[in-house]
Amino acid sequence: MVVGIIMGSSSDWPTMKLAADMLEEFGIEYEAKVVSAHRTPKDMMEYAENAQQNGIKVIIAGAGGAAHLPGMVASMTNVPVIGVPIESKSLKGMDSLLSIVQMPGGIPVATVSIGDAGAKNAGILAAKMLAISNEDVNLKLTEYTKSLEDKVEAMQNDLN
Amino acid sequence: MVVGIIMGSSSDWPTMKLAADMLEEFGIEYEAKVVSAHRTPKDMMEYAENAQQNGIKVIIAGAGGAAHLPGMVASMTNVPVIGVPIESKSLKGMDSLLSIVQMPGGIPVATVSIGDAGAKNAGILAAKMLAISNEDVNLKLTEYTKSLEDKVEAMQNDLN
Amino acid sequence: MVVGIIMGSSSDWPTMKLAADMLEEFGIEYEAKVVSAHRTPKDMMEYAENAQQNGIKVIIAGAGGAAHLPGMVASMTNVPVIGVPIESKSLKGMDSLLSIVQMPGGIPVATVSIGDAGAKNAGILAAKMLAISNEDVNLKLTEYTKSLEDKVEAMQNDLN
Amino acid sequence: MVVGIIMGSSSDWPTMKLAADMLEEFGIEYEAKVVSAHRTPKDMMEYAENAQQNGIKVIIAGAGGAAHLPGMVASMTNVPVIGVPIESKSLKGMDSLLSIVQMPGGIPVATVSIGDAGAKNAGILAAKMLAISNEDVNLKLTEYTKSLEDKVEAMQNDLN
Amino acid sequence: MVVGIIMGSSSDWPTMKLAADMLEEFGIEYEAKVVSAHRTPKDMMEYAENAQQNGIKVIIAGAGGAAHLPGMVASMTNVPVIGVPIESKSLKGMDSLLSIVQMPGGIPVATVSIGDAGAKNAGILAAKMLAISNEDVNLKLTEYTKSLEDKVEAMQNDLN
Amino acid sequence: MVVGIIMGSSSDWPTMKLAADMLEEFGIEYEAKVVSAHRTPKDMMEYAENAQQNGIKVIIAGAGGAAHLPGMVASMTNVPVIGVPIESKSLKGMDSLLSIVQMPGGIPVATVSIGDAGAKNAGILAAKMLAISNEDVNLKLTEYTKSLEDKVEAMQNDLN
Amino acid sequence: MVVGIIMGSSSDWPTMKLAADMLEEFGIEYEAKVVSAHRTPKDMMEYAENAQQNGIKVIIAGAGGAAHLPGMVASMTNVPVIGVPIESKSLKGMDSLLSIVQMPGGIPVATVSIGDAGAKNAGILAAKMLAISNEDVNLKLTEYTKSLEDKVEAMQNDLN
Amino acid sequence: MVVGIIMGSSSDWPTMKLAADMLEEFGIEYEAKVVSAHRTPKDMMEYAENAQQNGIKVIIAGAGGAAHLPGMVASMTNVPVIGVPIESKSLKGMDSLLSIVQMPGGIPVATVSIGDAGAKNAGILAAKMLAISNEDVNLKLTEYTKSLEDKVEAMQNDLN
Repeated sequence: MVVGIIMGSSSDWPTMKLAADMLEEFGIEYEAKVVSAHRTPKDMMEYAENAQQNGIKVIIAGAGGAAHLPGMVASMTNVPVIGVPIESKSLKGMDSLLSIVQMPGGIPVATVSIGDAGAKNAGILAAKMLAISNEDVNLKLTEYTKSLEDKVEAMQNDLN
Repeated sequence: MVVGIIMGSSSDWPTMKLAADMLEEFGIEYEAKVVSAHRTPKDMMEYAENAQQNGIKVIIAGAGGAAHLPGMVASMTNVPVIGVPIESKSLKGMDSLLSIVQMPGGIPVATVSIGDAGAKNAGILAAKMLAISNEDVNLKLTEYTKSLEDKVEAMQNDLN
Repeated sequence: MVVGIIMGSSSDWPTMKLAADMLEEFGIEYEAKVVSAHRTPKDMMEYAENAQQNGIKVIIAGAGGAAHLPGMVASMTNVPVIGVPIESKSLKGMDSLLSIVQMPGGIPVATVSIGDAGAKNAGILAAKMLAISNEDVNLKLTEYTKSLEDKVEAMQNDLN
Repeated sequence: MVVGIIMGSSSDWPTMKLAADMLEEFGIEYEAKVVSAHRTPKDMMEYAENAQQNGIKVIIAGAGGAAHLPGMVASMTNVPVIGVPIESKSLKGMDSLLSIVQMPGGIPVATVSIGDAGAKNAGILAAKMLAISNEDVNLKLTEYTKSLEDKVEAMQNDLN
Repeated sequence: MVVGIIMGSSSDWPTMKLAADMLEEFGIEYEAKVVSAHRTPKDMMEYAENAQQNGIKVIIAGAGGAAHLPGMVASMTNVPVIGVPIESKSLKGMDSLLSIVQMPGGIPVATVSIGDAGAKNAGILAAKMLAISNEDVNLKLTEYTKSLEDKVEAMQNDLN
Repeated sequence: MVVGIIMGSSSDWPTMKLAADMLEEFGIEYEAKVVSAHRTPKDMMEYAENAQQNGIKVIIAGAGGAAHLPGMVASMTNVPVIGVPIESKSLKGMDSLLSIVQMPGGIPVATVSIGDAGAKNAGILAAKMLAISNEDVNLKLTEYTKSLEDKVEAMQNDLN
Repeated sequence: MVVGIIMGSSSDWPTMKLAADMLEEFGIEYEAKVVSAHRTPKDMMEYAENAQQNGIKVIIAGAGGAAHLPGMVASMTNVPVIGVPIESKSLKGMDSLLSIVQMPGGIPVATVSIGDAGAKNAGILAAKMLAISNEDVNLKLTEYTKSLEDKVEAMQNDLN
Repeated sequence: MVVGIIMGSSSDWPTMKLAADMLEEFGIEYEAKVVSAHRTPKDMMEYAENAQQNGIKVIIAGAGGAAHLPGMVASMTNVPVIGVPIESKSLKGMDSLLSIVQMPGGIPVATVSIGDAGAKNAGILAAKMLAISNEDVNLKLTEYTKSLEDKVEAMQNDLN
């Protein structure tokens, strides 16, 4: 496995699946797991500590509310962790965002936007990290960027 | 030890000491330790898992920013955990508060107010929890409540 | 009665019932009452002042908007008070949260998360407080924590 | 006494004094008292219940953080209550404001702006309420409004 | 007319009507008008300046978003103005609230809660202001307070 | 006069002067006046209604807190109004910003950033509006943009 | 073309169309284009740099979330840029608003309200800017202002 | 150069220097440049487009207020971009944070915490990204993590 996608609950999957979709588009292997900071703290710890030797190069962690999963995992591995703030019910992800991004000096989490756009972006950001040393992914990113441009052109017709 | 006061950094001590002061006023034994969710996750886990058998009956945990310590400890012990949101530099503790209080269903943290007032209140709340089964502490709480009333009376003179 | 569940309006009951459900799961006796800080202030005062001698060991108080019930009750009893911020219409419980958690030094309220998750957590937190001196509840909490772990395992299938 | 100025702590007096200053300017009798919702709930109740028969026609109540004093007093008297949100340390009075203004249907508090401007305005608002049936205060309000205009004229020189 | 209810748009009427309903319950005469600070500034000015001589004793003004109506009217009359922050589409009334309550020193607006509860409370607050010099309204307020108590009692059954 | 700079109080001048400084840099005539929405509503109305025939082509209006000046003036003239949210004491200009920018459909205010940067930008924005039909100002804007580039180059040395 | 309406995605068109509708009402020529700061940065740059020589006198730019289009375009042209904060999914346009309005000193964006009202106002604000040197548009603005007054009159009937 | 540190103004350097310090600790080559999205948009574009062929593997971009630099650069290169929200004057970096993190689907920015802690974390996050394919940096990260643990141990003495 190259990328590990983890989340605190299977209810986060409809959002987190968008990260998986992007990885598939870039031809990057991944695994998706439910690993809860609060309900299975030991499994989380084990997951984080073994990630690198299990071949995981980037971790994408989604969590909502008092979202501790990304930061906790980041504290136990050299593997870069991307945090996806899941939109929460009452505070619409503002709590998730602050719980993930406001990490103290020493333990970074690469935080992306709240909700679906963020999950999608997590997949792309993982690809960008891997592209540092993977020319194949690098080329696919260039193609992807081109496809975004093309979409804009196509949109022009929707205005008329 | 009856109450464990933990915090992510010794820079939190000037605030957390106010919890200790209240416990001393109520004659409750405590220990104060630096236990960091992000820098010493294993020590934190060990601390949480052994708390109950070490005789700790209430844990007071202070943390700021993306504050994960109270929630993580709460997930690994039956001992009730009181979370103190430390005032953070940029967002003034709003990030600390949301990271501590917005816990998902299943893992409660008893959250108090941001900063010094919160730390003081954490000490009193621990006493209230212990007073459920400790008449001595219960009596001291009654005295304390009386002292608050007396202070209000004394304040009247400050207005003239 | 061991736990008193109070709320400002019967419209809060669908949320507060989740606290009752958890108490039932832990085999803890409770009573549920509508006690309004603003509409029946005297009843509230009487409730708070007599709670301890009525055998109530923990109070769970839910309120929304300018939520005064938890803090007012906490000021009139040694019994620990857990505050549940009910999700409000316009501000989605941010007003309820701040009105409950930001108590001044001297009068703590053990605040939990906004809405349903908070009510559920209030029931569990009450159990944790009681477990300090009740081995039976303590054992049930350990079982409950185990059940959370099991649920995570079961969720893994939802991802495929 | 015509207007009762109450506050939770003498530390609120430097702000609340600005309400008193305005009342003096309008020649309205007042008394200032420390009455704490949380530390002296019974005194507060007594104060509220007896206000009307003690000749108090308007109450100005200042409080900060989880500010319960204005709303609680308002629930126990027909006398209109003006709430002044005191600027709090961490959240700068946003907590005070929401705790005072977001009252449930049935129990209004006439809320003014956060801090010093709010206290000053509370004094003026009390005068406006009294002016409904007091021509003398009404005339003084007209003069005061005129003085505000004059000040603006004088300010023009500060720009050069 | 005793109370003037004004609002910037007829789309605010479903909310503002709740103020009218309370006034009817208290037997207080009122008129309801669309007076827009931004679309009919001169009419607004005329309304404000003539309010007192037209016999209006309290003004209730509802507005949403950048809500200028209550504050502008308050600046041109001795009559106390109650501001109702209408719930806005994107920011849910937080913009309305701050635009109404944060008035500078000199020009108070008696602000109530956002939306329907606020409109209802505006009606009651107007009654409280009038009750300073109107024993009939004062008695009706006492009855109303009693009816709130009775409702709480009735609610108890909803919990079972 | 080509540009009118108005503000609610001379205490806003240290900020608003930055708009004047930019206008001077672009060689645009201006006048600066204290015109208060709340203390001199009639003067404000007169100012707004006569602006166009007085030769004013752009109005820059600064205000803080419940900031009504820009929106009220905009409602009474065809002249484009630029609103500068002055940084307020407690809420740091968030109240000023929302009171100015969240205008209802029909009455736009061209809002710039909070505080000093906003005032400076108001001067530049006025120049951009005038440059639509004034080639001289247009050329000066091009020079100004060039000077911003040069400053960035000079900054490079500060990093070493 | 006199006014250029640009937006980052065709999904913004239902909102941005309201700006176009107003321009049509004022008889102002416009073009609407999808120009994305993030997906077609070079097209955006080209658009901005050529705007003036293409006869564009005002640019209206709509964007949501981390909304960079208005500010980036403003940095590359003397043409005044009006920014419309599109309502975003999770944060309801608060992110869009701050990303557009909080521009650093030197590069102003004329920001209007969030969402539909803002788009409509952008069209009117463009007309106000053009009216500085276009008497025809100026007259139409006067008519429009009159029509707003008439609408208020008509609304009065909705209250009965 | 391996890491490019860019910022909109030399006034951001005291914060951004903390990223440089971490890179030096990890023995990673870097360059620091002032590149402004708004004042030198063409230089920014050139910088972004040439980054990869200039050997830059990670970009760290700091910006405050309406912070567009990180997102704009990210849109024009495959190199992963880390965004540091600089603490702004009025809104304390909340505007910077939302302008950086809330990127639309397609263009991720790896956002870290507001201010100094964020800059430091940006340096560490860059190292984590490089460590995917650089064993030397990987070992240094392991050492660094160990040093964090040691610091916690040392802190214990500060509590006594």
